[in-house]
This record gives sequence, C-alpha cells and structure tokens, in this order.
Amino acid sequence: MIEEICRKAKFASTQLAKASAEQKNKALRNMADSLEKNCTEILEANKKDVEAARAKGVKEALIDRLVLDKRRVESMANNLRGLTKLSDPANEIVKTWTRPNGLIIGQLRVPLGVIGIIYESRPDVTSEASGLCVKSGNAIILRGGSDAINSNMAIGNALRAALEETGLTKDIIQVVPMTERSYAEQLMKMREYIDVLIPRGGANLIKTVVEKATVPVIETGTGNCHIYVEEDANLERAVDIVINAKCQRPGTCNAEEKLLVHKNVAKQFMPTIVDALIKHGVKVRGCKKTVELVPKVKPATEEDWGTEYLDLIIAIKIVKSLDEAIGHINKYGTKHSESILTADFNKALKFIREIDAAAVYWNASTRFTDGNQFGLGAEIGISTQKLHARGPMSIQQLTTTKFFILGRGHIRQ
Amino acid sequence: MIEEICRKAKFASTQLAKASAEQKNKALRNMADSLEKNCTEILEANKKDVEAARAKGVKEALIDRLVLDKRRVESMANNLRGLTKLSDPANEIVKTWTRPNGLIIGQLRVPLGVIGIIYESRPDVTSEASGLCVKSGNAIILRGGSDAINSNMAIGNALRAALEETGLTKDIIQVVPMTERSYAEQLMKMREYIDVLIPRGGANLIKTVVEKATVPVIETGTGNCHIYVEEDANLERAVDIVINAKCQRPGTCNAEEKLLVHKNVAKQFMPTIVDALIKHGVKVRGCKKTVELVPKVKPATEEDWGTEYLDLIIAIKIVKSLDEAIGHINKYGTKHSESILTADFNKALKFIREIDAAAVYWNASTRFTDGNQFGLGAEIGISTQKLHARGPMSIQQLTTTKFFILGRGHIRQ
Repeated sequence: MIEEICRKAKFASTQLAKASAEQKNKALRNMADSLEKNCTEILEANKKDVEAARAKGVKEALIDRLVLDKRRVESMANNLRGLTKLSDPANEIVKTWTRPNGLIIGQLRVPLGVIGIIYESRPDVTSEASGLCVKSGNAIILRGGSDAINSNMAIGNALRAALEETGLTKDIIQVVPMTERSYAEQLMKMREYIDVLIPRGGANLIKTVVEKATVPVIETGTGNCHIYVEEDANLERAVDIVINAKCQRPGTCNAEEKLLVHKNVAKQFMPTIVDALIKHGVKVRGCKKTVELVPKVKPATEEDWGTEYLDLIIAIKIVKSLDEAIGHINKYGTKHSESILTADFNKALKFIREIDAAAVYWNASTRFTDGNQFGLGAEIGISTQKLHARGPMSIQQLTTTKFFILGRGHIRQ
Repeated sequence: MIEEICRKAKFASTQLAKASAEQKNKALRNMADSLEKNCTEILEANKKDVEAARAKGVKEALIDRLVLDKRRVESMANNLRGLTKLSDPANEIVKTWTRPNGLIIGQLRVPLGVIGIIYESRPDVTSEASGLCVKSGNAIILRGGSDAINSNMAIGNALRAALEETGLTKDIIQVVPMTERSYAEQLMKMREYIDVLIPRGGANLIKTVVEKATVPVIETGTGNCHIYVEEDANLERAVDIVINAKCQRPGTCNAEEKLLVHKNVAKQFMPTIVDALIKHGVKVRGCKKTVELVPKVKPATEEDWGTEYLDLIIAIKIVKSLDEAIGHINKYGTKHSESILTADFNKALKFIREIDAAAVYWNASTRFTDGNQFGLGAEIGISTQKLHARGPMSIQQLTTTKFFILGRGHIRQ
C-alpha cells in the first residue's frame, strides 16, 4: 500500500516536472479556491480531531496547534496564492561555460522529484508543504500525526480536487491515510521512489527519522538558541533583544533558550535582565555565579544547557571570555540560530566565523530565522544540517541541478 | 577508539577552519614533498600489500589498482601541488542583501567540518581525498580496504608529518588503522562528529553505507550509462562516440554500458556498430530484435539492463521512440551519465529535461563526466544523488554556507 502511494507519486512527479510555470500557478490558485469552497467540510473534519484529542487528554497548547477556524483556512488559502507571485525555481539555467575542446557545459535547475514529509499535529502544514512542492515542481507524500488525520485528509482532498480541475494528476499530492507507525517506517525506506524526506516536529520525531530512514533526510528545526552579551554590548538594547528573542513566541524553534553574559558586565546587567524576564512571565534558571548575583534565580542543571524548552523558561550562564561563549555554544547548541551582542566588529566577525550554526547574528534577535523574514518566501522547514541546504528552506531548496553537456561528436582523448 | 579518532578530527576541523588560504596551500606543498621524500617507505609498505593480495589470489585487474611505483607516487604529489592553484573555496561571501527593516543578511561559504571516506583498494585515494579536504578546510577520516592498509598508513604518515611541519595539527588527516568491518560500521554512526560520509567503490559498498549509516551520506559512482542513437543521428560519428564511451576506459563509472538504437536506423546501424565493438574486444549482448538483425549477438537477459559491467561488455536494445528510450533509461539507469545522439534540437531538449541523471549529454561521449574534464578541478567522487551536490564533486562541493545577519538592535515585530 505504501509502495503503491510511492509509485503513484513518482509517476506524478514526472508529469508535474513538465508543467509550465503558469500551469503550476493556476493549480495553486485553484487549490486556494478549493480550500475556501470546502471550508465547511474541513472544519467538520477538524472538529472530530479536536474532540478526539480533548477526550484523550491532549494539552491545550497542542490543541491550539491542531484547531482550525474559518480565518485559519482563509490564511492557508492566501498563503497558496502568495506562492504564485514568486518566480519559478525550476528550469532556470544556473550557469554555462565552454571547455577548451568546444564542449558546452551547463547546469539546469530541476525539481527534486518526490518529497516525503513526516510531521506532527499541525494541519496547516498539509496545505503549506503541498503548495511549496507544487510551486517547485515536486510530488509530495504527506504523513501527518494521527491526531490530525481527519483534518489532513479533508485538506488533501480539497487540494487534489483542485489539481484535477487544473488538468494535472491529483497524485501530485497524497496524504497517507494510515497513521500506524509501521507505515511511517516503510515510507522512510522507499529509496527507489522518494528523493528526500523532511521530518517536521519535535526532537524525538526527527531523531527517529534520522536513525531509521535510508531515504536521504533533511533534519529540521530543533533550536537550542543562545544570545551572548559581550562586555561592550549596549545593555539597554540587550534587554529588548533578549526579551524579544525569548518571549515574542516562545514555542518556535528560533526562540532564545539560553543567555550567556560576559563576567565583566554580569553584576550590572544581571539584576535588570532577570527582573525583565520575570516580569514577562519567564522562569529563570542560572549557573552558580548567576545565582550568587541574583539569589531568586533557580540553579540550572547540566541537562538545562542542552534542552530546547519551547516554553517561557531560560537558563543563564556567566562566561569569562568570547572563546568560552563560542565553546559553550558549539558544545550545547543545535546548529540553528546564535547571536552575539557587541560593539566590536572583530569580536562579531570571530563569532560569525567560529560558531557552527545555520544562522549567526550580530546585534539582533534570533527570531528572524524564517524564510519570510529573510526575504526568501515561505519555507518548508529550517535545516539544521550542513548538506544541501542550511537555514530556511524555500522553494529554491526544493530543487537540484543537473549538468547538461552539448557536443558536436565529442569523444574523450 | 573510533570515537577517539572522531573527537580528534572534530577538534582538528575547528583549527583548520581558521587557517588562511596560504597556510593551506603551504600544507599541500609540504604534503607533496613529503610523499616524494618518503617514497621508499611508501613503496615498501605497498609491496607488502601487493604480495599479500597475490597470496590471497586477488584478480590482476584489482592488483593493478593497488600497486604503486615511483611514477604513481610522483603523480600523487603533483596532484596535491595542482590544488594550490585553485582559489580557496572557504570564506567566500556568496551573497548579501538588505531587508526593508535594515537587517543585512548574507551567506558565507564555510567548510563542512569532518568528512569520512570509506573506500576500497586504491591507495592513491588516500592522498587525493586528503588533498581535497585540506584545500577546502575539512578534517578527513580515511577508512580504506584491508588490502591496502599498509600503503594507506604509509601515505597517511607522510601527509601527517607534512601537516606538523606546516604548524597545523596532524589530526586533520587520520587513517583508521583497524580494517575489521565492525569499525567501519561504528564510523557510519558517528553523527556527533562526522558531517558527511562519502563511500567510494563498488555498488555493494555504497549500498551497505547507505543502509547502515546515520551520518548523512553522499552516494557516488555507480554508472549504468546509456547512449541513445536517434533515427536522425549522424551514424558515422555515432560509431566513434559509442566506441569511445565503451572502450576508452571500460572500468570507470562514466563508461557506456548500454546502447539504445531507434528502430528506423537499426537495420543500417546495427551490423556496423556490432562489428566495430567486436573489433575492439567487446562482448555484445542484445534484445530479441538485435539478435534477429545480427545473429552473432548473444541474447541479453532482464538482468543485463540493470547491470554495470565495468568491463568490455555491452547490451544493445532497439526502441520504437524517444519516449521509450527515456522510459528505459529512467527505469534501469543509475542517474549518472546519459547521452542522446540526434540532429534535432527539440529531441535533445526533451531528453535533457526528462532524463533523471547527474549529467545528460547531446552528441558526446559519456566519458567526460569528471571534475577535470568539466573544468572544475579534481574531484572526490561523482555524486549520483540529488541532495547537496550532483555530478563531479570538487572542492566547492566540500563546503556549505551559513547565514550571517547583521543588525543594529533589531527585534522582531
């Protein structure tokens, strides 16, 4: 059954790869219209999911990610329409050159082929990921969490109907109807059909996919992000930046989880920042020296330094030097987003060069790591690995290139 | 023990990443000199390997890949010197742009970090891969086949001595001394330390690594390459191209393994090409129709169409149309190098767009898929997968990028 889905996706991908930019945009417009036209059905299906989740005792924070309303469906539709405004990433000739023997060599940008997404209970991902794949010319297989299965199927059906209306095969988008784990594991091994697997969700989901998959995986998302306040930082601005990075949306992967402070400004900065954090509802933990300076701070454990809270919690550490800060971040960080606050260009440059992360900031909040904020358009996830794509993955990162070689009977000497 | 090697490599990679382009070039020159200076030791170690292999009854074709002489060591040294002429791929600023809010965003090219190579009995790979990694700023862990262990250790020791002489840590290059399979499998799971694993060798080696590794893998090399002769092809040139692609070096991954011929020219072309192939010592197999036209051709089995012979064997199939040729290649090919011979631009364009392979040719031999032939410089392998890099992987493909974001106290609204 999984293999059948994969086989259909593979065929659909070869069909979509031939579609023109205008056909793909027409499909996206029809998909948006279809979501709005089928809003009642989608909301009814979603109601079933929400009721089942409540009956199971799922936490309200997670219910909030699951629940849809008319406004959210309209926003999904508008995001699809937004994609039509981006230029087509496929079929671009990236580069050509001529070799001394007259052979013309070039690189052509092409879709990856079939993309598999394994995600948790956010039904809006079903529409968002499908839109990004259609725009970039890829077929998509969506395997969402069991909590959202009715919503995902309803959204998938609306999108598939729109593809047919456009004259494209509906198998460009397929939602896996089986939610048992064994089917997800089958999917992870379909090397013959799937070109890349993108897990979206918590650290455990991503770990499982990385360990079990034989299909190439792009790791996304886990963000144990740090802000480091150097001794020459503007401390007033530092308060604004730390509060923004920690509190503006604490459940996101680019939110700050750890604060490092240079020892020479700790005495001055610590009381202010701790009070500001507490005022914003943040639970503050700290290293031994932080607790000495501000006794109301709870001691942090070794485990804290490696934890992504995704919650209004922060851990603070006082460090002796820029080198210690860089060492700490490279040891405990998750290669996502890291920021230094300093007035000194040389220190910033050292931090940017030596920190091993997708996005390294100077004097800004880590909350900007996002396809739209970077000006790249919507994204399918934030890659925290080094191969293929690093940071926000927009439609361009859902493509690959092939070499084309034009000869006039050339043979190798 | 493997973890200790990996830990050292990780540390060495952070040191090398800080080295200047000139330091890296100096290291490469010293490495080249050291190979020549230690030539006697290297050849003695190699003699041990060759004798052991002969005693084990290893085939002469494989012995030929294992054996070193003074000329081959000099050629290894000169290849290292050649790398100093390429510009440094690291630390290039790929792009910068400014967002409407004044945030400056850019992409900086950086080394991948630690690269693991798992390869078979070619000791020259030890030097070649080490040179590419030093040039691109990466630490390397080399795990070669047991047949070449003495040669690899001797080459590794010469290269490491040169690194120390340059004032760099010798752990930038490490040869794994243990050749048992279990150590290779440990290496494949060192996610915390290794950034990418590149298997170089036969289809079985690559399959094992892909299945067992949790470290990201770049698949290389297997090439079941096709040449398709359209009905409007220049048939005289076609003979030259087919003979070149098949016979010039049949043991390489970009050599032709299959020939597809349009039915309308089969009667005319087949006797000529079969005779030419036989004259060059090639064993010819064919589909039913080919055998009907040229009865001395041996019938091909279903297995033939998917086999990479790496030998003077070819299988020929007559097809009804360009679509059938494309379908056959996408079904049986290994996404390496595929060529169409035709006078018609539209047919060539269709072939280039619809064939799913790293390199797609029009009117040329497939033998050009090679870093030097493409003008990219030496390569660490030919990627046949779609993520990160496709085709010849030169020093540029041994890097990744990171985003840098420069603010003036920017917080997200």
